[in-house]
This record gives sequence, C-alpha cells and structure tokens, in this order.
Amino acid sequence: MNEVPQATIERLVVYYRYLKKMAERDLEDTISSKTLGDAVGTSAAQVRKDLSYFGEFGCKGVGYDINSLKKCLERILGFNRVREIALVGAGNLGRALVNYQGFKEMGMEIVEVFDCDIDKINNRVGRLTVRSVNEMEKIIRKRNIKTAIIAVPEEEAQGVASSLVKAGVKAIWNFAPVALNLPSEVVIYYEDLASSLVWLIYKSGHGNLKVNVK
Amino acid sequence: MNEVPQATIERLVVYYRYLKKMAERDLEDTISSKTLGDAVGTSAAQVRKDLSYFGEFGCKGVGYDINSLKKCLERILGFNRVREIALVGAGNLGRALVNYQGFKEMGMEIVEVFDCDIDKINNRVGRLTVRSVNEMEKIIRKRNIKTAIIAVPEEEAQGVASSLVKAGVKAIWNFAPVALNLPSEVVIYYEDLASSLVWLIYKSGHGNLKVNVK
Repeated sequence: MNEVPQATIERLVVYYRYLKKMAERDLEDTISSKTLGDAVGTSAAQVRKDLSYFGEFGCKGVGYDINSLKKCLERILGFNRVREIALVGAGNLGRALVNYQGFKEMGMEIVEVFDCDIDKINNRVGRLTVRSVNEMEKIIRKRNIKTAIIAVPEEEAQGVASSLVKAGVKAIWNFAPVALNLPSEVVIYYEDLASSLVWLIYKSGHGNLKVNVK
Repeated sequence: MNEVPQATIERLVVYYRYLKKMAERDLEDTISSKTLGDAVGTSAAQVRKDLSYFGEFGCKGVGYDINSLKKCLERILGFNRVREIALVGAGNLGRALVNYQGFKEMGMEIVEVFDCDIDKINNRVGRLTVRSVNEMEKIIRKRNIKTAIIAVPEEEAQGVASSLVKAGVKAIWNFAPVALNLPSEVVIYYEDLASSLVWLIYKSGHGNLKVNVK
C-alpha cells in the first residue's frame, strides 16, 4: 500500500462524522462522492482518491452504501476497538483533554493520568485519579499502553518522553513546544498551538506584508 | 504575491524559534539554508522556497544573517506588534489557552475571557476576570478586537460565532467540533484534536489495515 498522506486520514475522519450523521438520520441508503465531497468541503475526485488508498468502494452510478462505508472507515481508522492512552501532565490542558468528548466515539480513551506535582497526585480528573510519575513506567508496561500524550512544561518533556518509550510507548502526541530526541521508530505528533493561531491571523490578512532585505 | 501555503507559515514559525535560540546563544552571525533546514527537519531547498514567498534573503555562499532574518520573520508573521484576542469559554481548555506560554512571544495575547455560566463569571483565569457573554459584543466592539477563540460546547458554538462576527471579529479559531456557518470573509481555523490523535495512532502502525469491499 502507498504511504497515506496525513491530510487523507484527517479527511477520512470528517467523512466518517458526516456518514455517522447520515446513518443516524436514516433517510438515504447511498451517497455519491459528489454529495459527500460537497458536505465536507472537498471535491468528488478527492473523495474517490482518498478512499482509493484502502481498496475499492462504491458502485459506478449508484454511489457508496452509507452503512458499509461507515463501517469500513471505522475499521481503517481503528474506531472499532478501544485504544488506551496515557496522559502525562494534569494541568489545565491535561484536564481539558481528559474531559474532551471527541475521543471516545473514535475508540480512543485516556485511561491513566500522571503528574509529578504532589499537590495533584491522588486528585480526581474526570473519572480518573492522578498517579505519580514514579509509577508511570510500571503501570504503562503492565497495561501494555502504546500511545501517550505529553502535556507537561517544556523543560520536563524530554525526560517524560524517554521514560514513556522505555515503558514501551510507540506513539507520542506532544503538546510541549520542544523537539523530542527519541528512537526513530517512535511516531511523534507535535501539536503546536501557537503556529495554528499565527496561521489564522496571517490568513485573515492582518499579517500580509511583503518584505525585501538586501 | 502568490498565495502562501499554510505549511510554509507553520515552518516559518519553526525557523523563527530556532533563529531566536541562535540569536540568544550569540555564537554565529550567519546560518546556511542547509543548517537551518537540518535543525528543523526540512531541506535547504524547502527553506529557500518558503522564504522566497516574501522577497530575497541571504547571500549566496554566505547564508542568512541570523538577526536580520529573525527580524524579517517577526514582521512577516506579525510578532512585532501585539494582537489582542478574545476567548469564549472558560472551561479547562479555555483556562489552558489563557495560561499557554507560547502565544505572547509571538505577539498574541488573550485579553478578554467570556462565559455564559454564572458560576464562572467574575472568577479569575490567569490574570483575567471572566465576563458574561451578554457583555461580549459591546466589549469586543469597543476594544476593536478582530480575532477570537471559541472553546465552548458544540451546541453553543454557532450562536457564539455569529455574535463575534456581529461585533466585528474577522478571524475565529474554533475548538468546537462543528462546522460554523459564517460570512465568507471571516477566516475560520478548525482545531480538530480528535483527528490529530487518529493520525498519530494510524501512523504508528496500529491502524494499518487494507480493506476491500465489494
């Protein structure tokens, strides 16, 4: 299979949400690539290309069966099984992530929260109890957790990341604004909140300057 | 000027952070596109292409002057002036955003926080006092705020967005997982936390399935 672009995976999530709404409404059985594309702001050709990475879907002139395409996307994206995630950092951002409603419908669940602050350890965050980072490696290894979120201050991020990898974590979602030095087989996603905001402001035309430097 | 891609703006932010560190260390005066590319995980050609949208930088065989490139990026990205931002929603995510350290160095500052929950109104969030959404339009218009962040539940997002636009907001960073129906001149950035996590998990090889449907 060819390497699937990140943008394709992100669009599949959007297609999935739309198909789920359609399936709940239960008015139509099929949907064309044009209708699906229009609904989510992309072209029919893009919908077909995105799906073509994963096999053959739909029937020429008829479109996609809504329920079966929805089920396929669930399997492709892994929503049909629960993925357990560990979170490190029980600050505001960590608490927001534990309480975020969008993960569970996609089969993702934060099941452990760790912090090094003794004022936070043993506190409740949502339905979880914050545990000490000293117990982190042991617990993650025991539960066989492969995915973790880092929501700690910049200066603690590398130490936390190294411990996570030692405990067997293979995928890290890093909110700390710092590059992590980890073995190449570990997948890291850098969530850079400031750069999203820079883009938004730039795009809205307030930062549109042409600069020439000699 | 050609339309500048989002990925370019995001890389400029990364270049900027690296140049800032170099300037603080004050060991070298110049940097080559290769060194800059290596440091941030991209190619020399990409560095040159990204900068070429904004004019001519650097000197063949010598590289870029670190301080002047840093200053140019500050101007291009608008970091040299303060941009005031309004935040709607004083929940965990809102509080995390107010306390996020990465905005200020980029000239962005959340200066107002609004909520509709009377238990939150008048509470402190960081150095700010939460105000009622009933006062939102008046305050935003008076302060001439053009950029806003929506961190409210899905079902409240459209109403909040419409009020913001009525008050003169031109750019919205939306964390609610819902499409907003707004005039086309308003720029919207959808922050979809679940889809970042889906991509990370997919990429780490746990979701890599080939599916064929007849």
